Amino acid sequence: MMQAEIVSIGDELLKGLRVNTNAAEMSAMLSLEGVPVRRITACSDLEDEMQEVLAEALGRSELVLVTGGLGPTRDDRTRNALQQLLGRGLRLDGASLREVELRVASRGREMTELMQSQAMVLEGSEAMPNTKGTAAGMIINCGPRFTGRHLVLMPGVPVEMQAMMERFVLPWVRARSGATIIHTPVKTIGIGESTLAEMIVSVEDSLPEGTTVAYLPHGAGVDVIVSTFADAREKAEEDNLAVAGAISHLAEGFVYAVGKESLEETIIAMLRRRGATLAVAESCTGGLVASRITDVAGSSEVFTGGFIVYSNAAKEEQLGVSRNLLDAFGAVSQEAARAMAMGCLQRSGAGVALATTGIAGPGGATPDKPVGMLALGLARRTPGSEGPHVESTLLFMHGDRLQNKLRFSQAALRMLWESLRLSGSSPE
Amino acid sequence: MMQAEIVSIGDELLKGLRVNTNAAEMSAMLSLEGVPVRRITACSDLEDEMQEVLAEALGRSELVLVTGGLGPTRDDRTRNALQQLLGRGLRLDGASLREVELRVASRGREMTELMQSQAMVLEGSEAMPNTKGTAAGMIINCGPRFTGRHLVLMPGVPVEMQAMMERFVLPWVRARSGATIIHTPVKTIGIGESTLAEMIVSVEDSLPEGTTVAYLPHGAGVDVIVSTFADAREKAEEDNLAVAGAISHLAEGFVYAVGKESLEETIIAMLRRRGATLAVAESCTGGLVASRITDVAGSSEVFTGGFIVYSNAAKEEQLGVSRNLLDAFGAVSQEAARAMAMGCLQRSGAGVALATTGIAGPGGATPDKPVGMLALGLARRTPGSEGPHVESTLLFMHGDRLQNKLRFSQAALRMLWESLRLSGSSPE
Repeated sequence: MMQAEIVSIGDELLKGLRVNTNAAEMSAMLSLEGVPVRRITACSDLEDEMQEVLAEALGRSELVLVTGGLGPTRDDRTRNALQQLLGRGLRLDGASLREVELRVASRGREMTELMQSQAMVLEGSEAMPNTKGTAAGMIINCGPRFTGRHLVLMPGVPVEMQAMMERFVLPWVRARSGATIIHTPVKTIGIGESTLAEMIVSVEDSLPEGTTVAYLPHGAGVDVIVSTFADAREKAEEDNLAVAGAISHLAEGFVYAVGKESLEETIIAMLRRRGATLAVAESCTGGLVASRITDVAGSSEVFTGGFIVYSNAAKEEQLGVSRNLLDAFGAVSQEAARAMAMGCLQRSGAGVALATTGIAGPGGATPDKPVGMLALGLARRTPGSEGPHVESTLLFMHGDRLQNKLRFSQAALRMLWESLRLSGSSPE
Repeated sequence: MMQAEIVSIGDELLKGLRVNTNAAEMSAMLSLEGVPVRRITACSDLEDEMQEVLAEALGRSELVLVTGGLGPTRDDRTRNALQQLLGRGLRLDGASLREVELRVASRGREMTELMQSQAMVLEGSEAMPNTKGTAAGMIINCGPRFTGRHLVLMPGVPVEMQAMMERFVLPWVRARSGATIIHTPVKTIGIGESTLAEMIVSVEDSLPEGTTVAYLPHGAGVDVIVSTFADAREKAEEDNLAVAGAISHLAEGFVYAVGKESLEETIIAMLRRRGATLAVAESCTGGLVASRITDVAGSSEVFTGGFIVYSNAAKEEQLGVSRNLLDAFGAVSQEAARAMAMGCLQRSGAGVALATTGIAGPGGATPDKPVGMLALGLARRTPGSEGPHVESTLLFMHGDRLQNKLRFSQAALRMLWESLRLSGSSPE
């Protein structure tokens, strides 16, 4: 079984100026090909340090994926480090040079020496022309110094790395890998990690060989990741599905998805199945709920739109919330949230309306309305002649502004999910 | 000078199921204290692997910060690994136990053995009670096996780690560190990395000792990070500011901030200085522009709200865009964008209105309107009796749905920034 490592080069990672999303993406891609990632290392772009880290990684693992340090600026020293480590020179790659020339020409620029250096690759390597940028990547057989080991060099710009992974690296990996790994997330909301672990202890006590369970708590709930490793895909799929199914059965009522589906996607699918439409009225979340909903491809079929009503005036004018109500209860109140939801339902014509009003902070708090306070309202048309069903709730969060916005939006989506789930097929 | 490393434990990182934001946050925090981070390693939660990684890190660096593997579930094995590595037992920490008890009681649960295990810390370590969760952290003097080396163990849940860093770890670091590092980002938009590098080559050629320059391209532009290391804070500040100032002078017109300020914050500050207000009308960005604007604390002073108008019907009803115009030019057109901006200006009463309409994909394209097509409109009240100033632009992006949404929102904010910058003090 092939085993991989990832080395991410760049001082910006060590200074905390950039989050290493590349490593996560490459790991996910390799996992899906059945190639486990043993270690991820981020290191400086100093040549000595790079050489030490790369030599260690090549000593441990057959395949080492490296990003960063291939650009045109002075802090891009990966090529130099590898020339020394492997004792090889550079060659100008024709196909890569043509991509650079095309890119330079399309911007109406002149070709410079700096730009041409982007098409230089290590001798004895397979070049990967860059279709999204300028720096060429390479796949390097590291023998004789590291026999049987391969090193893949890619630029650190995410879209450039992604394109090279898909076009060159993954096909190369597929041709060499045997086994299969399958990961299935069982996604829960509204339950803590310990309680969930106690609830599914019987499954954990009788896992089939090759299957493991991991807990992934995050702002949006706790995901239980069921991973199965096997030589044969059928066997892996069978074991994996059986465990995921058992967990989902034991934790019923908290599980919104078995698989990759996000809470937003789950909600869109529920609405679509019922032929229902959704609109939102957002104060404290400032558009975040709508943005999360519209992250889902095809959301336009069920999402009609929304109102961002930050000021009291906007709540009155855009949603018809009465000034008396706002004066009597305040804009952050269950009464206001219900009125916003009702106004949104009427003015949008949607079947379900979701409203948020709260105090994200750091300013805006009063003695009886602290930062983190959130009122949610939901209005839903009901079949028959009665008026809409309306519900509301009051919650308190304890984060900074961005955390509160995220948790507010999460609480709003959870309210919507539960209301759709409990109401069965009623909304129009 | 103290040097640190970060070890992030958890199979979810190696499987690409989670992005390592913790490491970036800890690195940024340590950098600000003048403690450089030499390496960041993510490894599996298998005990052998953890022991190997931790022993290597302690061999290289004085301080090793570890997150993950302290929770109550079976894949949480960091305590065990360290018991073996350092040859020590565990003790129940009283202060940590009280935090766990409080948390269990506040949820109306019974104390279990699993929960109690969360307050177990290594013998001879300083416990860090968890104020945001249950698992206690610890600061461990690793002598005699690793003389003069310290290991800090924290849970992997971001808010729990953050609270422990601020309450215990950073004060501990401050008491031991001497030197200072200062990082100043010079933030640009609308210019590529190579062109920028050529523009400021004279500064890079004459950097004072201890100062380095790094390029950080991302979806929102290119940041040039000026880093200065010195024993004395005054000297570091002086050198750092001089270089940042010189770069910002050479790249004038592309620099929107020198310092941490985001583009959103820059825009909010510009609006506030002019006493102007902003509203948005979003189709393809689905609330993302508003959400980014409202990420800024105090944005409510200048942001009145907005309209999310996903459907043609919503564009007509909420913004008064005429059906004839939509039929003649289509919803994704400069004409529609201008009409949306005008409607938004009128209906919101704001001084500036920004409108987005485009095709985020993957669906919705037509032969002459491809995925990635974006029309932007901006309307601005002008002093005196003339009508509002209106502008529009058409752009094409090449990403998936989420990338396109992000780039669309970025282009919209850039248009707003340039319009505000070029219009001087005119908007009301």
